Amino acid sequence: MATKIILDCDPGHDDAIALVLAHGNPEIDLVAVTTVMGNQTLEKVTRNALSIARVAGITGVPFAAGCPRPLVREIETAPTIHGESGLDGPVLPDPLIELDRRHAVDLIIDTIMAHEPGEITLVPTGALTNIALAVRKEPRIAARVKQVVLMGGGYHVGNWSATAEFNIVIDPEAAHIVFNETWPLTMIGLDLTHQALATPEVAARIAAVGTAPARFVGELLEFFAETYKEAQGFEHPPVHDPCAVAYVIDPSVIQVRRAPLDVELTGTLTLGMTVADFRAPAPADCTTQVATDLDQEKFWSLVVDALERIGDPA
Amino acid sequence: MATKIILDCDPGHDDAIALVLAHGNPEIDLVAVTTVMGNQTLEKVTRNALSIARVAGITGVPFAAGCPRPLVREIETAPTIHGESGLDGPVLPDPLIELDRRHAVDLIIDTIMAHEPGEITLVPTGALTNIALAVRKEPRIAARVKQVVLMGGGYHVGNWSATAEFNIVIDPEAAHIVFNETWPLTMIGLDLTHQALATPEVAARIAAVGTAPARFVGELLEFFAETYKEAQGFEHPPVHDPCAVAYVIDPSVIQVRRAPLDVELTGTLTLGMTVADFRAPAPADCTTQVATDLDQEKFWSLVVDALERIGDPA
Amino acid sequence: MATKIILDCDPGHDDAIALVLAHGNPEIDLVAVTTVMGNQTLEKVTRNALSIARVAGITGVPFAAGCPRPLVREIETAPTIHGESGLDGPVLPDPLIELDRRHAVDLIIDTIMAHEPGEITLVPTGALTNIALAVRKEPRIAARVKQVVLMGGGYHVGNWSATAEFNIVIDPEAAHIVFNETWPLTMIGLDLTHQALATPEVAARIAAVGTAPARFVGELLEFFAETYKEAQGFEHPPVHDPCAVAYVIDPSVIQVRRAPLDVELTGTLTLGMTVADFRAPAPADCTTQVATDLDQEKFWSLVVDALERIGDPA
Amino acid sequence: MATKIILDCDPGHDDAIALVLAHGNPEIDLVAVTTVMGNQTLEKVTRNALSIARVAGITGVPFAAGCPRPLVREIETAPTIHGESGLDGPVLPDPLIELDRRHAVDLIIDTIMAHEPGEITLVPTGALTNIALAVRKEPRIAARVKQVVLMGGGYHVGNWSATAEFNIVIDPEAAHIVFNETWPLTMIGLDLTHQALATPEVAARIAAVGTAPARFVGELLEFFAETYKEAQGFEHPPVHDPCAVAYVIDPSVIQVRRAPLDVELTGTLTLGMTVADFRAPAPADCTTQVATDLDQEKFWSLVVDALERIGDPA
Repeated sequence: MATKIILDCDPGHDDAIALVLAHGNPEIDLVAVTTVMGNQTLEKVTRNALSIARVAGITGVPFAAGCPRPLVREIETAPTIHGESGLDGPVLPDPLIELDRRHAVDLIIDTIMAHEPGEITLVPTGALTNIALAVRKEPRIAARVKQVVLMGGGYHVGNWSATAEFNIVIDPEAAHIVFNETWPLTMIGLDLTHQALATPEVAARIAAVGTAPARFVGELLEFFAETYKEAQGFEHPPVHDPCAVAYVIDPSVIQVRRAPLDVELTGTLTLGMTVADFRAPAPADCTTQVATDLDQEKFWSLVVDALERIGDPA
Repeated sequence: MATKIILDCDPGHDDAIALVLAHGNPEIDLVAVTTVMGNQTLEKVTRNALSIARVAGITGVPFAAGCPRPLVREIETAPTIHGESGLDGPVLPDPLIELDRRHAVDLIIDTIMAHEPGEITLVPTGALTNIALAVRKEPRIAARVKQVVLMGGGYHVGNWSATAEFNIVIDPEAAHIVFNETWPLTMIGLDLTHQALATPEVAARIAAVGTAPARFVGELLEFFAETYKEAQGFEHPPVHDPCAVAYVIDPSVIQVRRAPLDVELTGTLTLGMTVADFRAPAPADCTTQVATDLDQEKFWSLVVDALERIGDPA
Repeated sequence: MATKIILDCDPGHDDAIALVLAHGNPEIDLVAVTTVMGNQTLEKVTRNALSIARVAGITGVPFAAGCPRPLVREIETAPTIHGESGLDGPVLPDPLIELDRRHAVDLIIDTIMAHEPGEITLVPTGALTNIALAVRKEPRIAARVKQVVLMGGGYHVGNWSATAEFNIVIDPEAAHIVFNETWPLTMIGLDLTHQALATPEVAARIAAVGTAPARFVGELLEFFAETYKEAQGFEHPPVHDPCAVAYVIDPSVIQVRRAPLDVELTGTLTLGMTVADFRAPAPADCTTQVATDLDQEKFWSLVVDALERIGDPA
Repeated sequence: MATKIILDCDPGHDDAIALVLAHGNPEIDLVAVTTVMGNQTLEKVTRNALSIARVAGITGVPFAAGCPRPLVREIETAPTIHGESGLDGPVLPDPLIELDRRHAVDLIIDTIMAHEPGEITLVPTGALTNIALAVRKEPRIAARVKQVVLMGGGYHVGNWSATAEFNIVIDPEAAHIVFNETWPLTMIGLDLTHQALATPEVAARIAAVGTAPARFVGELLEFFAETYKEAQGFEHPPVHDPCAVAYVIDPSVIQVRRAPLDVELTGTLTLGMTVADFRAPAPADCTTQVATDLDQEKFWSLVVDALERIGDPA
């Protein structure tokens, strides 16, 4: 049976591919999509999510907008990586579907509480503001979700500072809330996602699919490659967010290691660092784990396969 | 016309008196009561609020339960001050009314948005968790409320640490959110409330009212006097929370001073301190002020008057 | 018998007056003067100290230069208050005496260890860098000094931030070291020194002395009045540093209150705040106290008297 | 020509081996040895250093004791690793030489200033308290030493916390001072030293030397193996400190990577973490580098060779 997920995202180039992968893969049942500020403002990433839905032919799934700013800190976005729209590169079609009238926080809570315990997997690929607010407003969701598989952080790698990753550092208090809840949590951080590089070979495989969604993804990667080269010196851009979806589809794609995990809130050099304690084997009651190694071949095949299944939506 | 307020509280002995004052005074229109963990667990303070409603004869006002724990930190309660029930001393009658089915956060948002801009005053007398969550979930309430008048903090006085007050320090991140919003905010802190001491003269005036609610308040003060003497060495107990209500009723009861105001989140000795900057006259765009001096005679007369108006509810 | 003091200073207008007071008052035996960066660079404040020695006729006292920068933080000086030279206003004569060849830290240690236990009082009126280094290099001085009476900090008043005073905040780690040592420590902070205002009446009394040193002090106060008005909005300038010397001369000039005292090292709004805990009576083993009230008449009479005793040095 | 070094240490089992290596290797000219509290109290580690001198036949080199406690924090030692004496295991002979009468800080300063610029290499293998105090007392040593090669920290590995290493975290302010000075600095951290494991093969090579000093080292390793297994779960104990000496002898033993490097002072989870910024190539003016890879064969051969050269001291 397919795994039911709520994708909480801020598209964002790699969020877009995560959405495509979640929609196209038969092991995933996408039951809701929620948005949060991050790569761009809430307004922009929400519109982007709806546009992607049209490109990928996603229908019948509620989309809801969430928090326009972090819990405690001021808002910070990433136009140097994702451009002014948050999804620069391809032409974005006007959305065909409308937003759910609920706040993302309530859609998350309602969806989890309406399903059986252990049915819903949360897949956040942006700042953790919505998820944090949801679990503080309705604490029972912590025990009711199956697990949280998130893209964010990095135990040895940072991008927004020497030690911190963007999704975490822009709302470290929210991340602290989510990382310290009782749910099983898998962190797909930069240690892992910097292995998911969109090389020319990858681009060629995607182009070979030959559909409109594939061209859309190709244009996203083209733009992403450019900004990642300029802003962070990458030869090929790392495609972070779909890694979290891939792990839900098939855990064998990603090796993980159990370890106590927490988020630094007061460091001068380390604010927002995701601290894993590897000094000893994880204690028996440890509910957190971090992604360490990616099976790149399997990963990209999942992406290409999803695009092939989606085909050319009517 | 009476001022419409939402009282967000954690009864709590002084919260109980705040509720009595808000209900009994004709200048206040109590449109909603919400509860938050603090003096005791959410379950206990919520039941206490409903019991007080029965004692004071409050009907037709929605009561809703809010957050059972702070945003980021672990929960901490104050049984040394308020006892095991959170309202030790008098016998607490079984509630007659039922809780609103909404979460306090939603009752706050719905109430504010259902009224005209500038109609609702928020009066938080506990941790600021509910208020912080409300304004993060629905940012438009910041511009829509008339003002926030809160009991908490202290610019030169602490109780839970040398520099911090209980309501603020148990959820400093929530306080930081609330203090940094755009709404006009008046902090009624310990600097002020330590002037509102329930002396034997005060107790005698309350006893002289001769009603059941007055006896209830008298028994609260008796218990409160005992714990404040033991735990903090006070000769007479400071009655914090009704001061915030009194300021809404009649600003002439409390002198205030405008000053930039913020909450310390990273201090080792100063976590949760409410920092006022008195070095220069407040800038023109400063929206925060702190309470400095209490007109004790006027204050206690308001409390006694409210009890007299309430009389003996059927 | 006169009290032997080491004055550790960063002249600095009010340091200059502290030096004059220490030299001119018969209750003080000035056994050494050491300098530390602060109001200006080490080079400048050291030259200023030697110039003041000439003006005031101080001879036979070793002067030594100390630390040119704080322990951990980058150097910060106060030209807006003390001008480019650190002692702007009067013409500064070329020094007649030479510096001791020892480092201030070693002069402090040697002097304390060469005297009997309980003989030497340390009077720091600048950043606490030298004192901190001295007690870390030779821990035995902590038990050997009589006491530390320092100008710095403020339990309810700040100047360099809302909560912190200049001397402490420019080297908070040094202050933390000094405040947490075992010696008896009296903090003469801004709460006190803002009561030592050089009004026109004070200036007139000093002018009436009619000597060259008195004219020098008059010119210092004239400049100081100007910068304090411009930079901090004071009508009359507070003359901080001589208050510490005055307390050593005659403790009845200043009322003090015993309280646990510490320095905040990690606060965002409160870095360098001197935190006094007034919640309960000071414990029996408390070795710290803060200055609360100044007898202004006695204080200024001490200053004027010192100038009169100094007369016109040859 | 041999490299002149000052070894600043807290013996300590691995410090003892560092001392043996520095003494026995012809590329090193050991010009001074200074001690600092750490693995045990100052008194104990200083006596240990003198005992080691006797065992290894070190004569004509000044030994001086330094700081008995960290700059700002309270003292913390490591008896679970190094035992009650700081050098448990072998019998420690009574010292034959006497301590230099100077404080370690002054011996360090005097030695550096007495040599030509660029002649002296500082090799700290304990907390950085002495070095920090020396450079604050005499700032000119920063430009005069050749380089600092220290054992401490770890860019991805901690031992005293998830992110921090013992030498750094017990005096993080001192480390911050040393890491931010202008001298070239090489950090030989846990990332590197956890590759220097004293396996049974290593122990056998050392035993085969057949001298008293070799037996002494063998007994040290035996004890160290036991505590490292118990306290930190190591199969074979990492021998940290001689790695720093080995790098001075022959840089080809250790691969390094240039990167900006700093010490976290305010983190809750990361206090004392040594933060390297690997996000981009090190800027041209970067003076810090970290050790990444050890040539184990070369390293242990240096240790064995030093023991062979020392032979059996008279």
